Parts: sequence; C-alpha cells; structure tokens
Amino acid sequence: MRRPPLALALALALLAGSPAAAAPAESTVAARITGAALIDGQSYAIVQSLTDKVGHRLAGTPSAERAVEWALKEMARAGLSNVHREKVMVPRWVRGEESVELLAPSVQSLHALTLGNSVGTPPGGITAEVIEVTSLDEAKALGEKAKGKIVLFNKAMNRVGQGFDGYGAVVPMRGAGAIEAARNGAVAALIRSVGTGAYRLPHTGATHYDDKVTKIPFAAITAEDADLIHRWIAAGETVKVRMRLGAKNDGEVESANVVGDLPGREKPEEIVLLGAHLDSWDVGTGAIDDGAGCAIVIEAARLLRTLGLTPRRTVRVVLFMNEEHGLSGARAYAERHDKEVANHVAALEADSGAGRPLGFGVAGGPLSVALVSRLAAPLAPLRTSSVKIVEAEGADLIPLQARGVPVLGLLQDMTTYFDWHHTNADTLDKIDPIDLALNAAAMAVMAHAVAEMAERLPPSPPPPKW
Amino acid sequence: MRRPPLALALALALLAGSPAAAAPAESTVAARITGAALIDGQSYAIVQSLTDKVGHRLAGTPSAERAVEWALKEMARAGLSNVHREKVMVPRWVRGEESVELLAPSVQSLHALTLGNSVGTPPGGITAEVIEVTSLDEAKALGEKAKGKIVLFNKAMNRVGQGFDGYGAVVPMRGAGAIEAARNGAVAALIRSVGTGAYRLPHTGATHYDDKVTKIPFAAITAEDADLIHRWIAAGETVKVRMRLGAKNDGEVESANVVGDLPGREKPEEIVLLGAHLDSWDVGTGAIDDGAGCAIVIEAARLLRTLGLTPRRTVRVVLFMNEEHGLSGARAYAERHDKEVANHVAALEADSGAGRPLGFGVAGGPLSVALVSRLAAPLAPLRTSSVKIVEAEGADLIPLQARGVPVLGLLQDMTTYFDWHHTNADTLDKIDPIDLALNAAAMAVMAHAVAEMAERLPPSPPPPKW
Repeated sequence: MRRPPLALALALALLAGSPAAAAPAESTVAARITGAALIDGQSYAIVQSLTDKVGHRLAGTPSAERAVEWALKEMARAGLSNVHREKVMVPRWVRGEESVELLAPSVQSLHALTLGNSVGTPPGGITAEVIEVTSLDEAKALGEKAKGKIVLFNKAMNRVGQGFDGYGAVVPMRGAGAIEAARNGAVAALIRSVGTGAYRLPHTGATHYDDKVTKIPFAAITAEDADLIHRWIAAGETVKVRMRLGAKNDGEVESANVVGDLPGREKPEEIVLLGAHLDSWDVGTGAIDDGAGCAIVIEAARLLRTLGLTPRRTVRVVLFMNEEHGLSGARAYAERHDKEVANHVAALEADSGAGRPLGFGVAGGPLSVALVSRLAAPLAPLRTSSVKIVEAEGADLIPLQARGVPVLGLLQDMTTYFDWHHTNADTLDKIDPIDLALNAAAMAVMAHAVAEMAERLPPSPPPPKW
Repeated sequence: MRRPPLALALALALLAGSPAAAAPAESTVAARITGAALIDGQSYAIVQSLTDKVGHRLAGTPSAERAVEWALKEMARAGLSNVHREKVMVPRWVRGEESVELLAPSVQSLHALTLGNSVGTPPGGITAEVIEVTSLDEAKALGEKAKGKIVLFNKAMNRVGQGFDGYGAVVPMRGAGAIEAARNGAVAALIRSVGTGAYRLPHTGATHYDDKVTKIPFAAITAEDADLIHRWIAAGETVKVRMRLGAKNDGEVESANVVGDLPGREKPEEIVLLGAHLDSWDVGTGAIDDGAGCAIVIEAARLLRTLGLTPRRTVRVVLFMNEEHGLSGARAYAERHDKEVANHVAALEADSGAGRPLGFGVAGGPLSVALVSRLAAPLAPLRTSSVKIVEAEGADLIPLQARGVPVLGLLQDMTTYFDWHHTNADTLDKIDPIDLALNAAAMAVMAHAVAEMAERLPPSPPPPKW
C-alpha cells in the first residue's frame, strides 16, 4: 500500500516544488514575514540581550540559571503562551585554573583550554614527554610507546564546504582521544584545537571517558602551539610538557529547559517544535553557539504571532539546557513528552550559527525532500530553497528523531563558524544582524508551512550513533 | 651651489630609474640574490629558530638574554665578522597577574592585557564607573566628569591601505591616554585594543607617563569587550569595572644590541646598516614583530656573503634591544657610534612584518627618491620597485636619522599585520616563507646597491617627534 501513494505524493510535490509553482498565498506569507524580520525584527536584540546580560552560561553554573530566567522573560515578551521551565538534571563540571607549558627543548607557555568533562591533574601537574598522532587509529597502534607519555592528537581541521564536514572529520578525536591514549598507558592527552582560526585561540568542547579505562586529563592547545610541538618532534627533539589542570566533575544539579507555545488555531495538540540550546561553553559569550539559534527560534514564533499568522498546529519553542555537555535537556524533553511524541509532527533546530541561510536539511528520503522543497519554494528569492538529505539535524533533536519525529533544520553558511566556535571569541560582533534576521524569517516561513500543511512529513529514520 | 648638481643628478637618476634602463649587471645581481633567497634561503629557518627556541623576549627578561645569545650564534653562523654585543641599559617592566572584570550592569570577564610601562593597581584592584571617549581631545574635555572614573578610549582602528596609516590614527591614545585621563582625576584607564582582528585578542604596546601627572594603571581590552561596554553606556546604564593589574616597573638591567659586519672590499669604514629589533612584547613569540625583520637582515647579509657579492662598503647587521619599550638599543647604538656617524652612508630597517615587499620608503626629497628608485629598478619584476617619501623608517633608526643618516626601508603589505601585532597570536604560522624570502632578497639587493654605489644618498631630514 505504500508505493503508489508515495509515488503520487512525490510527483505532486515535485510539481509543486518549483519556485514558479509556489502559490501566491505562500509567497505573500514569506514576503510579510521577511519584511517584518528585516524591518521590525527583534532577533539581533534578543541575542544581544542574552550575550550582554548573561554572557557565557555553562550548564550547572549560576550563569546558566540566569539564562533560564532570561529565557522565561524573553519568551513571554515574544507573546508565547504557557512559558515554563521543565526540570533537567545536568552535570556540574568546573574548569578551575589551567596551564600547559612546554618545558623542553624550549620553554614556552602554550595556550590551552581543558576539554569539558575532563578530569584534572594532581596539583603539581603532570610532566611527561609528548608523542604525536594524527588519528584515533594511530593512537590505538601506539602500544607500549604511549606508556607514561602525553599523547598529542595533531590533525588540522580543514575548511570543507559551508557546513560541518571539516569539523566532523576531526572531532571524533576530541571525543574519544583520552580513552584511546589511556588504553596504551598514556598519562594525559592534548589535542590540536578543533577549529579553523589562526588567532592563538584554543577551542574547548566535550570529551568523554569509558568507565573501564583510566580517566586521564585532556586539554586542547592552539593550532600554533601544536605546530610548534610538531616542528620539534620532526626535528628529532624530545618534547616535554607540563599540564596543570584544575578541572573536576562535581556531581549533578537541577537546571531546566524553557518551553513556550504559540497554540495552533485548529489542532493545538499537534506540535511543530523549534529548538535551540540555551547553554554555552564557559568561554566567550555563546553568541553563535547558540545565542543566535535561541534568537532565531524565539523570533520566528514572535513573527508569526505579531503578523497574525497563527497556523493550524501549535508552534512550540524549546530552549534546551546542556546541549554542549551531554544533551541532558534534549533527553529530558523526550522522556517527559514521550507519550505525546506522536503528536510532534516535526522538530526543527537552529544550532549552526548566524551565517546566511542556504536552505534546509531534512532527515528522510526523497518524499521528505520533495515535501520540504515545496514548503521552502517561497524562499527561493532568498536563495534559501535548496533542500538536502541529512542524517540528523541538531544534536538536541536526536532523542526525538530516535522516536521517529521528522526532523529538519536550516542549512547555513558556516564558512567562518569554526573560527570562533567554542572559544573566547564567540561574541556578539560575529553576528551580522541582516543574516540573522534572514535566518529568523526562513525559520518562520518553514515553521508556518509545516504547521499549516494538510499532510504530515514522513518519520525520520533513526539517527546515527554519535 | 646645490641646485645644478641636484637637478643634474635628478635627471640622470630618473633616466636610469625606469626598469628598462636597469644595467644588466644589476639585474643579474638581483636574479642571483632572489634565486638563492628562494631556493637556498635561510630566512624562515632563522625566524623559526628564534621563535621556537627563544619565544617571546621582552627586554629585561631572561628570555631576552637568551635572544642575545641566539643572535650572537646566528650571526656568526651567517658568516658575519666581528659579531659582538654592545651594552644597553633597559628598563625592567613586569606584567604580573592581571584581570579586568565587568561588574555591572552585567557580570562578565573582559579579556585584557596591561599596557607596557603601566603601573599596577593596589592588590584589591580598582573598582569604578567607566566613561567612554573616542579621542585624547575628548579625554581632555572631560573635566570634573572624569573624577574617580575609569576612562575608556574606545575608537576602532580601521584597515587603511597596506601600511601604518590605520595604526597611526589611533595609537597616540595608547601612548598618552593615561596622562590625559589622570589630569582630570580618573583613577585608571582602558583602551580598545589597537588592532584590526576580531578574535577576542587584546593587543598590548607601550604607554607613557608625565612625571607631573599621577600615574594611573592603563590596560587594553579586546574590541569585543569595548563594544559591550559601549552598548551598555549607549543604553544609559552605569558600567562598573574592576581592574586588578600586578604590573610594576622594577629598575634597569643590562642587556645588549648584537652587531656583526660583512666588511666592505674597498671602503670598510663606510657602513650600510641593516637593522631590526631583537626584543618583542611578552606575549606571542614575536614572529612578525620583529622576528621576521631579524631574519630578513641576517639573511640579506648572509646571501651577499654566500654569493660572493661583498660590496665596496661594509654591510652591518644590528639587532637592536628594546625597540618596544623605549628605543633603548637604538639610542645606545647612536651614542656609542656618535663619532662614526658620518661614515653611516645609509641605514635600513626591517620592522613591518613579513608581508610581501612592495617597494621602499625613504626619508628625503625627490633626489633621494630618484636615487633609490634607480637602485630598486631591478626589483620591478618582483613588484618591489615603487619608492615613496616617508617621514621616518623604523623606530630604531630615529636616533641615527636625527644625526642626519639617510634612512630607508622596505614597504611591505601590512594588510593583516595589525590582526596579530602585540598579541599572543604573533606566532610563526603568520609568516609565509616565500614572502619572507622575497623580503630578504629585496633587502639584500638594496643593501648591495647602496653599499656599491658611487655617490652617497643625501642626508635624511630630522625625524618627526614621536
């Protein structure tokens, strides 16, 4: 029974998907939303408010609690209904003082940030010789050679296209590097910062452990410092480094997701979820990661409400707590709303910064692409109508995707995103107000269309293991 | 008596100055030097050695002493004669621990570097309201309003052309800001970093005091943090900042310039001086400021020696100590060699980074330009033959220029120079090896030509007051 309707729907969708075929009503909606976003928009003011007033906001810190208070107010101010917090337990990880020094063959301070979740060193630090690898496989193959050493994962991240590809190629080393190094007896690990900038900026990010393997300290050094160590090793020198990391994991504390609705006019029980994450790392002010996303989703809902474009289904804004450090909020939301999950007709995430919107990614097959393409068609003049298949869309949506919710999201120009991502330089000035407003407009147009459409998107396939 | 010879020389020089008229011999010299610089060159290895082995090297620190030892070895290795140190007394300034925090209306850490020569704060810090100005004149006009406040000099540096113009427009505030703020009763001062990058990098640099005015602490914050404070003030909020700076001036210590010669084959007593500065700020590794210059001048002399191109006059390499923090080495050299100053037929400085060479600047009039243009003509294929009049060329040459020595230097592409200048990101990777080799080649060609030419360049006019 599935094939004929699929083929039929596909044919209809493809027909409807060309920009020329966009219904006048849809174009009008897109024009109204875009005009309001650019001329009377609030997206930049929202992210400015979050980053200036709250600053960075690592889950489990007092600053994250201030962010929750901020979100409750800001979502109420945007006119959302039933704005409330939903309890999330989050780990409390404390960075502490940190220093990484090159002791031989030359003496230099290295610029470093401990990776999130890393254990610390003893107070006197760990001093050891550094050996270098460029992949997890090389680390696994070290065998006895790693014993008593500090393993440096030193693989440069390349700029690859406009999305996550360059990041994806190296970030697994940040996740599992400490495990593979420790298996072979290493006493600590370092990684060349996963990023593309060249301003002596260390990039933090989450790492993880395996309970069966000794937990060793793990920090990121800058690309410049990784190059320095590489040159010494290439010259046959013995490189010694001292790491002093005051990091510790300090139990769990209560925090919250913040949720608010624009209730649907016909089917309020059916939900189109717009997500972003409220937490950030404890550096910078979390402007592009993910203050921009918070602004995009709040503003998208605000635009629909202000313009009187309330759709048939409910548009729900969820600001998730602790995306960075374990997806706590994402899991808590999916568990809490497990029984209503079938009513989630789609979930969209904004967690790719503030770069110009390029289109939409959807986890699904050709039918999903065809349907989303039809909905995105009115955005063709903004060059935001291209649609491609992705495996997942936004880490926060993974637990929902695992439950079959159709997930999609904005594709954005991320060319410079990883210059600032997870660094002290992730600040407001990296956001172009026009580009941000265009993202909010594109998100609003898509949210409106999905919440209005007669049919439903097919379920997304299960997410890949992350 | 001066006019006819000037006009005659000018006419001859202009005639000879077109690239087509470059004597074959000159072109051959340029080709040999350039080929050797690019294929068998040492310039990158030299700056790598300095920055990797010594790292940053603020005058008065043990690291600066290591740099002196390094220079003695490196200049001997380049084959220079009579390589020796010449005593220089330098101030010892110690940065200490430093932090600048925004306390109200939001609580955020600001990224800061104390300016060189600044006094510190009391151990508990200075907490005060911030008021903002965009110029020294505005600071002077504050009157009573500055009393008890922290004055923030908040004027963005623009990218202007390829040279120092953007820097020159704002750097006087870094020099004299503390004086003008203190005159009106301010308790401390801050400045938006004098630089063009946007990676949350504070830029340090020298400031100065007036003995008749209270010395108040003065630090640079990042552009991002200056923007944040600006937004709060523009919104009518009261901005409070706490500055805790551990800086202190700790007397004088002995250090050294390092000098070495390639003795002239006919007039060894006549000197063409190639200068750069050996010291750096106590951040980054002083790669572009001025490790590159050190490499350029050592390599230029080495190329001439290796290629058997010893000119009629002596080519002398001088690596000056403490350019950054008071020109101590430049003054010491000029005083020590005061009696031989008439034998300095020219002085060339390399202190503009490692960007592609664009030509030469010369402090002088049309005759100087005509003569230097003729000498630079063989570099036309490298797009390095344009010559323009400058008021001064390299801070280290000011005391020599004040004594009438003709000064000139490389013009280089500095488009990105002030992104890294005086920051922790001034590291080796900012140097393109090919561009650096081209600089060394251009410097060698000009040094050879000036040391070989029949006539002498006219004296430079006195330098402007800096």
